[in-house]
Amino acid sequence: MGWGAALSLLRSGFAVHGCDVRSDVLVRFAQAGGLACATAAAAVKAADVVFVYVVNSKQVEDVLFGVQGALEGARPSTVFLLCTTMAPSASVAIAERLETAGMLVIDAPVSGGHQRALSGEITVMASGSGEAFSRASAALDAVSARVFRLGDRAGPGSQVKMINQLLAGVHIAATAEAMTLAAKSGIDLKTLYDVLRVSAGSSWMFENRGEHIVTGDYTPRSAVNIFVKDLGIVASEAQKAGAVTPLATAAMQLFLEAAEAGLGLEDDAAVAKILARKSGAVLPGMGG
Amino acid sequence: MGWGAALSLLRSGFAVHGCDVRSDVLVRFAQAGGLACATAAAAVKAADVVFVYVVNSKQVEDVLFGVQGALEGARPSTVFLLCTTMAPSASVAIAERLETAGMLVIDAPVSGGHQRALSGEITVMASGSGEAFSRASAALDAVSARVFRLGDRAGPGSQVKMINQLLAGVHIAATAEAMTLAAKSGIDLKTLYDVLRVSAGSSWMFENRGEHIVTGDYTPRSAVNIFVKDLGIVASEAQKAGAVTPLATAAMQLFLEAAEAGLGLEDDAAVAKILARKSGAVLPGMGG
Repeated sequence: MGWGAALSLLRSGFAVHGCDVRSDVLVRFAQAGGLACATAAAAVKAADVVFVYVVNSKQVEDVLFGVQGALEGARPSTVFLLCTTMAPSASVAIAERLETAGMLVIDAPVSGGHQRALSGEITVMASGSGEAFSRASAALDAVSARVFRLGDRAGPGSQVKMINQLLAGVHIAATAEAMTLAAKSGIDLKTLYDVLRVSAGSSWMFENRGEHIVTGDYTPRSAVNIFVKDLGIVASEAQKAGAVTPLATAAMQLFLEAAEAGLGLEDDAAVAKILARKSGAVLPGMGG
Repeated sequence: MGWGAALSLLRSGFAVHGCDVRSDVLVRFAQAGGLACATAAAAVKAADVVFVYVVNSKQVEDVLFGVQGALEGARPSTVFLLCTTMAPSASVAIAERLETAGMLVIDAPVSGGHQRALSGEITVMASGSGEAFSRASAALDAVSARVFRLGDRAGPGSQVKMINQLLAGVHIAATAEAMTLAAKSGIDLKTLYDVLRVSAGSSWMFENRGEHIVTGDYTPRSAVNIFVKDLGIVASEAQKAGAVTPLATAAMQLFLEAAEAGLGLEDDAAVAKILARKSGAVLPGMGG
């Protein structure tokens, strides 16, 4: 997702400094016209707006507050866009720490997937101050098709993203369950997919991940491990809030089993393999 | 759904005979230009095509094979469209009995809801012989926007509908779970709905039933009891097939609890009330 945002910013004419732990990504970034930096502190030195694209809140803290982290290099009033999906409580705490240091913050988790990131058409679920939004608006426009402004402080952006992930995770698991039952019932999966994607049982995830299962293609667009994390956030925040979430719990169990079975880095649709194994079904791409 | 089909047939110029256990419906049907009949046998006497719209397989058997049932009145080669959502095994058995008696059969469960039925735009998941389809095609065109032909005998139509109901039931329960967690987290439900209906967490059911929960309107478009039945079909057929369906099981549990709590005739989105009560949340329309 960060790669797509970087390319979109370059396409829009921004001078983009970037930093990544993977050196091959930095080389590609420089070839694409970006300014590759060795540390986060160096990357943000001349920046007005900083996009933070890492996997979890621990990595956000490292890249912001660690040695040679972004906070060491940033000028006052730099706008930090926190694009990682993390617990709303973590997002609030990180935003407070940045604001105390004189920075502006937008809680800005994103949605839409790899392809839309490349074309600068992601959706941003954003909350932060008016000043932060006005300073970051040109950069936000470059990377996104739609920005939802959900509040004037960090928190609501991550909360709405968390609920999105609850639904997305359940829908992926439900897609896997539907395909497995279909396979056990002798229904042709491609036919089922073509009918149900335009019926009342459809979902964004059925349409998207259903195709991965039908073709047996588990090349990771988004990995099983991401939903282990995101449904883990749902579970802990739901517990704190006192909300019962039986479906998210059942879905998380399947993603956990998939990760334990060594499928953590496969496409998240690989939860279907867990259901298929338990059911004695053979899905495309699973071999005899 | 049957009412919408009857009106659509009348609009297309068919002579439509109808029978219903509710006399007020028959009166309205006659006012709309239909020919009201006292028994199923009388209704089908002059018919080329018979639509059977009742709630479950027991009612299908009663209306077809009972005293003064349709089979008593029908001429040979009449086409019976079995539009009820029922277990594939039940659909197959009923079709065999009709065919043995010289009738033609299309396993033809429908999808799309009340509004689309009224406008003649339902989706039909259909399987049956080529002869049955050619005889019924004008009538099918009058009631539907789309007919999927899934095989040349009864069974596949009901199987695909069953999988659709698995997904639909899970998605309704997931919508309820998302709204309940949002309410407990202090997120404005209307805002959440507006954002997520166009995000990767969306589903046909989130878009449709989510609005019922946001507005607190539980007027039954489709009732809780329907999903108690349909997820019951999923559970028993999955068990027969040896497929594990943890999400459908979790969703069915919620619909069962809703029915036990006296909500069986409310809109199926009323599963949200069960989750809200368990979570100590108050959703719109639930009172203080």
